Amino acid sequence: MTPAAAPEAPSREAVVELLGLLALGELLAFERMVFDARLAPDLGRRAALSEAAVGEIRNYRLIADRLTALGADPAAAMAPFREAFRSFDASTSPRDWLEALVKVYLGDAVADDFFRAVSSGLEDADRELIETVLAESGAADLAAEEIRAAVEADESVTGRLSLWARRLVGEGINRAQGVAAANERLTGIIVGDGGTLDALLRRLTRAHQDRMKSVGLNN
Amino acid sequence: MTPAAAPEAPSREAVVELLGLLALGELLAFERMVFDARLAPDLGRRAALSEAAVGEIRNYRLIADRLTALGADPAAAMAPFREAFRSFDASTSPRDWLEALVKVYLGDAVADDFFRAVSSGLEDADRELIETVLAESGAADLAAEEIRAAVEADESVTGRLSLWARRLVGEGINRAQGVAAANERLTGIIVGDGGTLDALLRRLTRAHQDRMKSVGLNN
Repeated sequence: MTPAAAPEAPSREAVVELLGLLALGELLAFERMVFDARLAPDLGRRAALSEAAVGEIRNYRLIADRLTALGADPAAAMAPFREAFRSFDASTSPRDWLEALVKVYLGDAVADDFFRAVSSGLEDADRELIETVLAESGAADLAAEEIRAAVEADESVTGRLSLWARRLVGEGINRAQGVAAANERLTGIIVGDGGTLDALLRRLTRAHQDRMKSVGLNN
Repeated sequence: MTPAAAPEAPSREAVVELLGLLALGELLAFERMVFDARLAPDLGRRAALSEAAVGEIRNYRLIADRLTALGADPAAAMAPFREAFRSFDASTSPRDWLEALVKVYLGDAVADDFFRAVSSGLEDADRELIETVLAESGAADLAAEEIRAAVEADESVTGRLSLWARRLVGEGINRAQGVAAANERLTGIIVGDGGTLDALLRRLTRAHQDRMKSVGLNN
């Protein structure tokens, strides 16, 4: 029997690009939650979302430290992805507290699925890092609870929030395709051996649809 | 010898008002730092200010928990002071990174002086809480270091930042007088037995002037 060829380990450069993307995602998720917390109907919930956001900036620190350990400058590794995140955010500015929560819930969940999908091809240290990052779910839990309660209290919000969630996913797919087209090496490590970006996006979208149901929204 | 009359312990209502003011101050300081971090010249410093801001939201949590222990609702205790903070912030929006840092440094330092001034008349549990809150100085340290470096690198920023610092103090005094006039019971606990608001503000202003010098700014 000939052993199957082991998949080639990703290059250090590709890993630095991936961690740069993840680090910026965590940093900006933190900022966005703190900004959007101002949409809360009272100071208690405003503070609660800010407190939950702290998990994201902690994740940022873990990833930034790993970049430093790999000999990379975290700021430089993040810089190439600024524009993609900026334009996603500019086109998906929530108009109220529930829209903000759907964005938190979806963003966190899709990011987790994405992390899981890309982590399998990585070295142990990077895989462990990603597992630690994934274990943080404070903001998503808070958002899911609030969305479920809102849908139960008033079914008429379901349609509006479901539409909003679809728009977020559509904009997210657009941005992901843009980043993938501009970063071939990164895309290679993300989709894995023999994978395609479309297949990955289809998988992420299916997982997303199941999750929408779990908080009472439609696909 | 007749023992001096012990000063009357502040009423629970007055302590709740004071803790409400402090809690909102910490929550909004956190938010403000995260917003203003976007003025940073690079992603590394932007993240550093956000990370330092986490100390403020932790302080918020400590104070909110104490309010809950006293049987008060933190959100309700904070609500009366929203407008004063909102109008202070609206009139002191920093135009660049250095102005943002001066606001962080000054705000944190004046808040600390204020905490120290009011804590002496409180019960042990409240005094200990305030000591814990005071021990957090990550954001102020980061800001002081950056301001000192900027003044050393380019002396021409001294005048502009000194002027900005004076404006912050002036606006702060205005707001403090407004809050004091509207909350007699709170003012009583803040200025202490036989004290006046003017005397307290003069003391805070003197401490502020010494601190300005320590980061290379003028009074």
